[in-house]
Amino acid sequence: MPESLNIDVGVAKSEKYASRESGDTVELVERPSGGFTIVMIDGQGSGRAAKTLSLLLSSKAVALVKEGVRDGVVARATHDYLFAFRHGQVSATLDLLSIDLRTRTTVITRNSESPMLVSLAGETEVLPALSGPIGRYRWTKPSVRELPMQPGLEVLLFTDGIWHSGRRTNELPVDLAAFGEQHFGRGIPAQSLANLLLESVIARDAGKPNDDMAVVALSLRESTAERPVRRMSMEVNLP
Amino acid sequence: MPESLNIDVGVAKSEKYASRESGDTVELVERPSGGFTIVMIDGQGSGRAAKTLSLLLSSKAVALVKEGVRDGVVARATHDYLFAFRHGQVSATLDLLSIDLRTRTTVITRNSESPMLVSLAGETEVLPALSGPIGRYRWTKPSVRELPMQPGLEVLLFTDGIWHSGRRTNELPVDLAAFGEQHFGRGIPAQSLANLLLESVIARDAGKPNDDMAVVALSLRESTAERPVRRMSMEVNLP
Repeated sequence: MPESLNIDVGVAKSEKYASRESGDTVELVERPSGGFTIVMIDGQGSGRAAKTLSLLLSSKAVALVKEGVRDGVVARATHDYLFAFRHGQVSATLDLLSIDLRTRTTVITRNSESPMLVSLAGETEVLPALSGPIGRYRWTKPSVRELPMQPGLEVLLFTDGIWHSGRRTNELPVDLAAFGEQHFGRGIPAQSLANLLLESVIARDAGKPNDDMAVVALSLRESTAERPVRRMSMEVNLP
Repeated sequence: MPESLNIDVGVAKSEKYASRESGDTVELVERPSGGFTIVMIDGQGSGRAAKTLSLLLSSKAVALVKEGVRDGVVARATHDYLFAFRHGQVSATLDLLSIDLRTRTTVITRNSESPMLVSLAGETEVLPALSGPIGRYRWTKPSVRELPMQPGLEVLLFTDGIWHSGRRTNELPVDLAAFGEQHFGRGIPAQSLANLLLESVIARDAGKPNDDMAVVALSLRESTAERPVRRMSMEVNLP
């Protein structure tokens, strides 16, 4: 039953304190078979080398997604490419979040070290990372989670910088469950959800992020729009 | 002098009335050498064939941009690809809007039939299309316009559906100069600029867009942010 749906995606990123480039790259592209995919790559390390690595891998992954390659194969191919050319010496995390209009599902394909936060019909779950980073071992493959594409679904996906925040000052990890309880199911725009998580985590690092950080938020709601208008925006501050 | 800068991009799209797919595809990706490129393709016709064509061409152009290929070559290569495989029988328009952080310029590369609107230091100009669509003739090349990357720059770029609106009812073309006079230089967010132009044009088509429509707005302002946070969002309504 194709009910009317509002797909709302928000991304917020920041760099490690005093670093000029972020090793986290997030791209959002259209799928040839209908829908959208967010590609998020966290290149090992920080600074220019990490940024170059994450741009190189996002280039590969984005090209494959745009050619209609299925997400599980995109993850494996991006891993194989990194492993072939860097001989297991360099790693990266990779997350693909797809809204697939053909299957009417939300598919999350991960090679990550951070958990993610999912809420559906009022139930919030913290889902652990089940597959490690790409680039290190010969036969790495991603873990895949399929969720319904229906109003009420909320997802928060993020890179290590978020999950490891506060480590230097020996704080406990971010309380994701509490964050979900507090903010999910309230109709908060996806961009605000992403901003809220990023800001709360930067506060844990006393305003000086310990690592590059990226957050992707997805919220599906019932649509009230009359016309199929699509909007996209980006804001970058160069201080 | 690298002064602090806020880069604000907004995109608004709609489909031809009663059409289920838009032949206009807009993608926004990161450049490996620093900065961002917006790729906008308008595939000939409307409906599924036009959408497939524009997704195919955007796949080619996005992959090249992400590999670090210079914009003029991206346009030529995308044309050559279309010409080689469709033998001059199918055309498309292509626009690349790049914010190049290495050269600190805004570069607009076009194979289009619509003018564009540019405002700099209070001067608004309607710039005509100087190079036609890709895909038809053997040696097609784009026209390139380089603008400074400085606060006060505002750009509106759009597909044919905008420019040809009101034709069926014999209205005069959209008065772009008047639109610029009314809305530029007022600190209006790029997303709102794009929305305003799209809505005013849909009104000219009496609420039933005559063609697929896409608008890209760019606004550069002085930044007041303390931290180099980057935000990106997307909203899609499926009625």
